[in-house]
Amino acid sequence: MSKKSNSMWGGRFNKTPSQIMQNINASIDYDKRLFHHDIKASLAHVAMLAKCDIISKNDATIIQSGLKVIEEEIQSGKFDFKQELEDIHMNIESRLKEIVGEAAGRLHTARSRNDQVATDVRLWLKDASENIQEQLKILLHNLLKQAAEHTDTLMPSYTHLQVAQPIVFSHHLLAYVEMFSRDLSRFQDATRRMNELPLGSAALAGTSFPIDRDFVARELGFAGVMRNSMDAVSSRDFILEFLSAAVIHSVHLSRFAEEIILWSSSGFNFIKLSDAWTTGSSIMPQKRNADAAELVRAKAGIVLGHFTSLSVIMKALPMAYTKDMQEDKVLLFSSVDIMDLSIRAMSGMVLDMEVCRDNMEQALNSGFSTATDLADALVRDLGLSFRESHHICGKLVSMAELQNCGLQDLSLVDMRTVCEDIGEDIYKVLSPLSSVSSKNSFGGTSPVQVRAAIAERLGWLKGL
Amino acid sequence: MSKKSNSMWGGRFNKTPSQIMQNINASIDYDKRLFHHDIKASLAHVAMLAKCDIISKNDATIIQSGLKVIEEEIQSGKFDFKQELEDIHMNIESRLKEIVGEAAGRLHTARSRNDQVATDVRLWLKDASENIQEQLKILLHNLLKQAAEHTDTLMPSYTHLQVAQPIVFSHHLLAYVEMFSRDLSRFQDATRRMNELPLGSAALAGTSFPIDRDFVARELGFAGVMRNSMDAVSSRDFILEFLSAAVIHSVHLSRFAEEIILWSSSGFNFIKLSDAWTTGSSIMPQKRNADAAELVRAKAGIVLGHFTSLSVIMKALPMAYTKDMQEDKVLLFSSVDIMDLSIRAMSGMVLDMEVCRDNMEQALNSGFSTATDLADALVRDLGLSFRESHHICGKLVSMAELQNCGLQDLSLVDMRTVCEDIGEDIYKVLSPLSSVSSKNSFGGTSPVQVRAAIAERLGWLKGL
Amino acid sequence: MSKKSNSMWGGRFNKTPSQIMQNINASIDYDKRLFHHDIKASLAHVAMLAKCDIISKNDATIIQSGLKVIEEEIQSGKFDFKQELEDIHMNIESRLKEIVGEAAGRLHTARSRNDQVATDVRLWLKDASENIQEQLKILLHNLLKQAAEHTDTLMPSYTHLQVAQPIVFSHHLLAYVEMFSRDLSRFQDATRRMNELPLGSAALAGTSFPIDRDFVARELGFAGVMRNSMDAVSSRDFILEFLSAAVIHSVHLSRFAEEIILWSSSGFNFIKLSDAWTTGSSIMPQKRNADAAELVRAKAGIVLGHFTSLSVIMKALPMAYTKDMQEDKVLLFSSVDIMDLSIRAMSGMVLDMEVCRDNMEQALNSGFSTATDLADALVRDLGLSFRESHHICGKLVSMAELQNCGLQDLSLVDMRTVCEDIGEDIYKVLSPLSSVSSKNSFGGTSPVQVRAAIAERLGWLKGL
Amino acid sequence: MSKKSNSMWGGRFNKTPSQIMQNINASIDYDKRLFHHDIKASLAHVAMLAKCDIISKNDATIIQSGLKVIEEEIQSGKFDFKQELEDIHMNIESRLKEIVGEAAGRLHTARSRNDQVATDVRLWLKDASENIQEQLKILLHNLLKQAAEHTDTLMPSYTHLQVAQPIVFSHHLLAYVEMFSRDLSRFQDATRRMNELPLGSAALAGTSFPIDRDFVARELGFAGVMRNSMDAVSSRDFILEFLSAAVIHSVHLSRFAEEIILWSSSGFNFIKLSDAWTTGSSIMPQKRNADAAELVRAKAGIVLGHFTSLSVIMKALPMAYTKDMQEDKVLLFSSVDIMDLSIRAMSGMVLDMEVCRDNMEQALNSGFSTATDLADALVRDLGLSFRESHHICGKLVSMAELQNCGLQDLSLVDMRTVCEDIGEDIYKVLSPLSSVSSKNSFGGTSPVQVRAAIAERLGWLKGL
Repeated sequence: MSKKSNSMWGGRFNKTPSQIMQNINASIDYDKRLFHHDIKASLAHVAMLAKCDIISKNDATIIQSGLKVIEEEIQSGKFDFKQELEDIHMNIESRLKEIVGEAAGRLHTARSRNDQVATDVRLWLKDASENIQEQLKILLHNLLKQAAEHTDTLMPSYTHLQVAQPIVFSHHLLAYVEMFSRDLSRFQDATRRMNELPLGSAALAGTSFPIDRDFVARELGFAGVMRNSMDAVSSRDFILEFLSAAVIHSVHLSRFAEEIILWSSSGFNFIKLSDAWTTGSSIMPQKRNADAAELVRAKAGIVLGHFTSLSVIMKALPMAYTKDMQEDKVLLFSSVDIMDLSIRAMSGMVLDMEVCRDNMEQALNSGFSTATDLADALVRDLGLSFRESHHICGKLVSMAELQNCGLQDLSLVDMRTVCEDIGEDIYKVLSPLSSVSSKNSFGGTSPVQVRAAIAERLGWLKGL
Repeated sequence: MSKKSNSMWGGRFNKTPSQIMQNINASIDYDKRLFHHDIKASLAHVAMLAKCDIISKNDATIIQSGLKVIEEEIQSGKFDFKQELEDIHMNIESRLKEIVGEAAGRLHTARSRNDQVATDVRLWLKDASENIQEQLKILLHNLLKQAAEHTDTLMPSYTHLQVAQPIVFSHHLLAYVEMFSRDLSRFQDATRRMNELPLGSAALAGTSFPIDRDFVARELGFAGVMRNSMDAVSSRDFILEFLSAAVIHSVHLSRFAEEIILWSSSGFNFIKLSDAWTTGSSIMPQKRNADAAELVRAKAGIVLGHFTSLSVIMKALPMAYTKDMQEDKVLLFSSVDIMDLSIRAMSGMVLDMEVCRDNMEQALNSGFSTATDLADALVRDLGLSFRESHHICGKLVSMAELQNCGLQDLSLVDMRTVCEDIGEDIYKVLSPLSSVSSKNSFGGTSPVQVRAAIAERLGWLKGL
Repeated sequence: MSKKSNSMWGGRFNKTPSQIMQNINASIDYDKRLFHHDIKASLAHVAMLAKCDIISKNDATIIQSGLKVIEEEIQSGKFDFKQELEDIHMNIESRLKEIVGEAAGRLHTARSRNDQVATDVRLWLKDASENIQEQLKILLHNLLKQAAEHTDTLMPSYTHLQVAQPIVFSHHLLAYVEMFSRDLSRFQDATRRMNELPLGSAALAGTSFPIDRDFVARELGFAGVMRNSMDAVSSRDFILEFLSAAVIHSVHLSRFAEEIILWSSSGFNFIKLSDAWTTGSSIMPQKRNADAAELVRAKAGIVLGHFTSLSVIMKALPMAYTKDMQEDKVLLFSSVDIMDLSIRAMSGMVLDMEVCRDNMEQALNSGFSTATDLADALVRDLGLSFRESHHICGKLVSMAELQNCGLQDLSLVDMRTVCEDIGEDIYKVLSPLSSVSSKNSFGGTSPVQVRAAIAERLGWLKGL
Repeated sequence: MSKKSNSMWGGRFNKTPSQIMQNINASIDYDKRLFHHDIKASLAHVAMLAKCDIISKNDATIIQSGLKVIEEEIQSGKFDFKQELEDIHMNIESRLKEIVGEAAGRLHTARSRNDQVATDVRLWLKDASENIQEQLKILLHNLLKQAAEHTDTLMPSYTHLQVAQPIVFSHHLLAYVEMFSRDLSRFQDATRRMNELPLGSAALAGTSFPIDRDFVARELGFAGVMRNSMDAVSSRDFILEFLSAAVIHSVHLSRFAEEIILWSSSGFNFIKLSDAWTTGSSIMPQKRNADAAELVRAKAGIVLGHFTSLSVIMKALPMAYTKDMQEDKVLLFSSVDIMDLSIRAMSGMVLDMEVCRDNMEQALNSGFSTATDLADALVRDLGLSFRESHHICGKLVSMAELQNCGLQDLSLVDMRTVCEDIGEDIYKVLSPLSSVSSKNSFGGTSPVQVRAAIAERLGWLKGL
């Protein structure tokens, strides 16, 4: 290694065992984010201890006021976090002793670090998940707002990235409304399932103190208490489930991000994003790189990696608590931050996107996007079987290709050389507008259906 | 490459493009598992087409009888699956034409392969998920049965694989009852969310035929119809959610499998598994390898890999259908088979395990598993702060270590040299039995709590 | 569960423990693929045993002839595989006893199933990896062939899917030649590192028989013998490394597949794939879905999932052999089959693709792809700093946007209103052809560099 | 959301688009770690520009001195990093302009951010990988040192966590020496393959300036230059390969960590770790939780997650640079830090572990660990087939089980009731010491082989 790089790495060569152990063991750098929920849980725990006469009212009052001082210190940036105290819980406990003296020791009565950590993380995640749900509702709202403006905007749909059938732009957006609605309900289910109090499980076996867990649950807003003390301190499926909902939502966001990138590219030019969500090149002012969409797309990989990591960590862990579980927090915090940022970015882009109707229509006309409508019409009007109809239809498309025109530009005389029963009214089904209007089955792309769908989802959203 | 190995690989060197395309494209080898649900969905679709006068009653009758013939052919092993027909849908359609002739062509009216596939897989997975849930209930039942027999069986609990506190064996089993209960509710949620009909979405835009989707939904047992036709053919979150529930359950199973392996090892000898769930060595008859548990443990890795694969495949896919999605089925089928087998194997092992009480108690006595009880007693009885109590307690454990005995074997005189206020009744808290009995907080390991927990879960299980 | 679905699942409800254990335990369904390499290894082992006088020459001859009979039986499809014999090794051993009687028992002298399995899989994978390498060379060759025809075919390059600078098509293909060259070298390294013989390690401790491991290594074409018997039977990093090389190569293939899909879409129309590699729609003859490319893209997800699975399975496994490791084979076989098929499909598509030069050039002209060239010219010719030059250049692009023309269409008079020192020869740098020709730094896109690069890689490929 | 939690999340609700874009887009928080290598690369680039007369010597001198000032500012903590300048490259460039004025603009001649980033990361990773290799060598050295002290320390080996055969402790350690040796060679291969210069590729197409890439490569210590400019800026397989080597090494470390946890548990008590690598419980002084080992075990999950993330991010990305790639650095930096810390922690634990020979021997005697030796002896000495021998051996083990003794404790008379040809010298093979001594095949566990293996590896390590 060169001398220069030694200056980069050198410090790390000389680490003593205790330094390495401290580095690998300490979590204060990231778990200090739990401070508010740790103090909140301690306040409720102390209140319960006093109520149940396990500690004196006086001790409780002293501890509670000390905890509030600490919360203020942390919020105002005055708290001195110490790595040698390993985690947020020890940092707070140690400071509490400095402030209130001997009474601080009674705070830890009838609880252990194991149920304390599990409680803090659940409390934190309940709030975080609520925030994610709020962001998702805003995203849904923005999608419905954008959709409401484009119930008549025609565009081609694609399968295999090849032009398929005409749709209205709103219909495309509504597909994401559906996906995101289900994502929302998954976050709700995860939040509901994690909404049980671990505190009172102590190290793993419960406690001999006459505690009142229901009281603590009510104080902290939990719907109930966990039924088994070993499960309470050893399980992390509440995090895994939240992360799995995040993975699925990220995958959906990445699909939309991909489409934003495609639609913004010169190959499509269906939408324009403003400077707020793109970056440019100092020499090519026409270049609007959809960086935000690319980052949202990439973040799906990170969230999936985090879910993988935590699953791997938990796999085959014997009960009860082992130190491996400490790694859950970095993964959770990072995933929550990513979801928050990704949803906000997507929300912003949805409102920001300017739709280029002309380019959409042009793309529509260059394919034979109404060929399926033609086939359906022959079945419906002439009583042909679907397979017969396909055959005729294929010949007509070939004819249009040869004449270098659209299906709607073929003459009736020419069409009748392929199928003599074709009538004048065939032209009605060949225009993109007719096509979308005809797709009036429930859930279809006809403007009537699309408007009804928007109304239904708006009503649902308001009712949440 | 040697000549020998050529005989292994040689055939594959000469593949023509069409062969390679067929090999990479065809799915009939695995999607033939969908045959029953494909036919079921077609029967309902045809009934609807006739009811809505889209096809004649006569055609409907002919098609339906043909489909039933095909189902019998497949069930009896007489059906000739053809790889060149790519998938199960084309194989059935092609055979239907052979059997009923021209009418077969009308079956495909107002639907496409896209909504057909989505419907088949949802139908299949609803049944598969129901089976998994049944298996899980059996597993829960077996755990509760085994737990009911060991509400007084003492064993050490562990944290960090070091002896922690005394518990009863049932309490340990109940931790898994809790995990598996939540797993069950996740499978239920996933099943509920996927319980919507995609059929009627056609290729992606809906259809111009006057179909009745609600009728089809009722016929097929779906709770409702999907609201957006693009979403219906493009989304696979219903599979991802099922797989994520499977990953989390697999992780839980792997933890229990790990414990079975540990408990069966000579280091612990807490349980014995019979020949039914172990394999031996022909020369070492004492050797009972917990192969079934090892395989359950390993399978968690496979299920996680499958979830990863499908997430990766779906990430950043533009709408609507693309061929990438075809890969979902191999992953799903394999995961369902693994879950079915793993849960059954675990169910079997739970009933099979013979508990070695003596070894459990011996392990309990060799640690200082009641040290926490001692500390709690000093707090409760002498009014010490928790931290003071810890200090005294540490000294007593050191004393016992020096005397090479358990805490309960120290004389009162010796104890009082450390803390003179210790009274005679301290011995009550130092026995493992007293310890577990005292953990009588809700969710704790006291036999009273454990018996109540078993009763509660049994009631819940019966009510499902 | 409905009656119908019972007919699907019913059989599995009644499984007895022994059935479940057999189902989860048996590997014969997939590990029979090892038959050739298992017999090959046994032949060498027997030859060594006889050479070292551990068994008689006569026994050796009898066993060897029996093994050859078995190989013929399997190759000709006459062998009766039995699930109750669990795996290929037991199936062969049991059949050998039927054929040669008591001597069969001596085959297993000085070896165990553990080192036998490890040897078989290494032998198999060495051959499989060689085949993958051969396929990769063919792919590289096809890329270079296609590249050689397009050293003057202009196209836009993209960053962020936005038009960037002009390149020649060959240059783009050569980027993949580089990636695939490194992929090839990774497969070579993996193969070299796995090229050591495990046999002779017995169960895990070595053997007391006077064996000659070097002899067996030579017979089987291994470069050496493994140095530690526990490592030999417990390690699977040789599979993990192969899979990791497969993941990285799959990722590269997926990037090329994505580009093929984009280039084939109506948004770009840069290439056409023939029927051999696409699927159509019966009614839309113009529709050429790049299914093969989509499947290659999706398969990257499967291979990544397989690598994940095996890593998870091996993580935290104590030594030596545990049954978890049995799962390695399904993952390996599937990955090898996928790589073989994906590379062949990509090889085929590379040769098959028809390049649409006109569409490429048109896309080139619609951006301002030579803006960077302009900026460079101002630096070089007028001595401006790069940042000054960018500023001027930005103004000229804005001017061209306003006039709705390309940079090369601006008049000199107009340009001089922005920068009066611009000279006549500026037009030379504004054409795409000039642009690519000027990028003559080593590794750049100028046809001179590109032709040299093709020649270099062809030479390298021939030398392999 | 409660009022309290609002104070946690509230700030994030009001983010403006520009804030969100900046948050998701900026990388300066983590990529500032590249500062040294960024400046190093710029110094070489400037030297080349001057040498090739692309900029003046004077400008070069000015820029170089400015860059050195910046490096000192950063190293001494005086540099003011600005998030609005997004990344380390822009931060340095902007500061350079402040220091040296207009000349700063010439630094960016003939390069772009794309090839600059690729160069910086390669330079950084080459150093980081060298450090990892150094750490691995120290770990190997410590293992060999510990092994050298235990070539005669008997212990049981395990398969399926059941006692298998006697081995010496060194032999077990040497298995990890082998795994880690291969891990080292994988890091070496990865480093060798990434050792090529991307700089000179500019944005993606190369440059029209007459640069000298070989000069820059030599200055920066690269073995050569990358052959294709698009590949140079778009590929990240050099990171993926490094991460895959890290995953495999992490898996190996996790296996060793698992064994350290098992060996330290009360079920085994084979080793003791000191306070330096364990954490205790304030009340249970006997409790030594192997936290460091648990964390090393868990970290394997994180590294696997990171590899997964980057593979997912790169999958199906069209060329050339897209913003998704920016996410590579967080994953890489975190993985490198983890590897560094995990290897150091393992190195420390290897030296720290105190071996409890008595407990190892006791565990050995409680199994029938020499049963295989007995079987081998009967084959070798009495000319039985292996299968016959197994049968007899099984009977003898059953006899010993009934008599509740070891095989070596059976009387000759008793043994002869099972097989009358057994002779006096059978006792020689029944002691664990005889057993290990007899495993004298190359790579076996006999002390002779083990000492030779230690010597061989020490020689190899010195030669590196």
